[in-house]
Amino acid sequence: MKMAELSARTGVAAPTIRYYIREGLVPQGKLTSPNQAVYDESHVRALRLTRALVGVGGLAVEQARKVLAHLAEKEGNTYAILGSTQYALTPPSVPRDDDASFRAAERVDALIAAHGWSVRPDNPARTTLAEALVSLEALGVTAVTDMLDTYAAAAEGLARDEIERLFETTADESRVVGVIAFDILGDRLLSALRRLAQEDATVKRLNADAGDA
Amino acid sequence: MKMAELSARTGVAAPTIRYYIREGLVPQGKLTSPNQAVYDESHVRALRLTRALVGVGGLAVEQARKVLAHLAEKEGNTYAILGSTQYALTPPSVPRDDDASFRAAERVDALIAAHGWSVRPDNPARTTLAEALVSLEALGVTAVTDMLDTYAAAAEGLARDEIERLFETTADESRVVGVIAFDILGDRLLSALRRLAQEDATVKRLNADAGDA
Repeated sequence: MKMAELSARTGVAAPTIRYYIREGLVPQGKLTSPNQAVYDESHVRALRLTRALVGVGGLAVEQARKVLAHLAEKEGNTYAILGSTQYALTPPSVPRDDDASFRAAERVDALIAAHGWSVRPDNPARTTLAEALVSLEALGVTAVTDMLDTYAAAAEGLARDEIERLFETTADESRVVGVIAFDILGDRLLSALRRLAQEDATVKRLNADAGDA
Repeated sequence: MKMAELSARTGVAAPTIRYYIREGLVPQGKLTSPNQAVYDESHVRALRLTRALVGVGGLAVEQARKVLAHLAEKEGNTYAILGSTQYALTPPSVPRDDDASFRAAERVDALIAAHGWSVRPDNPARTTLAEALVSLEALGVTAVTDMLDTYAAAAEGLARDEIERLFETTADESRVVGVIAFDILGDRLLSALRRLAQEDATVKRLNADAGDA
């Protein structure tokens, strides 16, 4: 197919497609004349994946290139592919070297051990979690950290279901898109659902109080 | 206490405190001379609340002023105070008028009805949820939306626990800080825990597959 059709099929504007090709995220088309290239289904798939990484995933082009390189190199090594995708999606942060951060990192280690989780030392979510604990301590709110094990149990139950569904698709490319969907959009979805459910729980709690009075 | 002590007590730099006072987020001190003001515990509390709203909550000064005004006006109306805080924390977005957005909004209504949730029509989390559903449909991933009821049930269980703990503190100011903690930091905490648990679930799933082979 020509560029116009590739653009229509994927919903990505031609200049954006040319940019992704220049940046090496999407392979070049096959030249049929000095000024004309044709594209096939592999380009449609590469564009879909790139849009997921850069668009929904919010990855910089450089990070997206790394995930795609991993996908090309480690064909068949699902753990490495899913890991590099997930790690790229987690906003990087430098672990801080103060007392509160140290205590929070220890608490994260203890929580992972208590739940028997296999998690690599370089999983960036360890630092995200530790930073949230430091902020909570600074706010002086203990109610959230008191619920840490409840949150962990909920996360474990959801993750088991999520990974099960992720493995139902067998193509590594689809699994990468699935990780983006579960991590980025799943975060937003769960955040919105919690806020809706919190409003409902507030109404029910206030009604119960009014009933008691 | 003088400005220097207020700054030391709260960890907020004096120029920032003066900015919050100019913007009306923190009340003025009591003048003891034309160039000298003194502050009391009410200023410490106001600063703590402002830091939570503007710092952790990421609210613009204008939004923070609205929440604080609500807190001052509606003394005792917990539902209005918690609602205005929660709504201010949700990034605003304009509901879109295309077919996919319309279908997603209907799905959100159906989900809220199916779970018997009391949620106001203007809760901005409805739009956030609908937008996530539209993005998932565009990505072509059904695994996440297939789990929508599982996510909703998890959110409901957590929200009941969260609101229960929020109501254990009786001061409206503390409850506002609690909403910020549960919503903003709770989101980050749950996101990080899911990613840790997902890595563990991947390892266990791959080990189980290897054991079968």
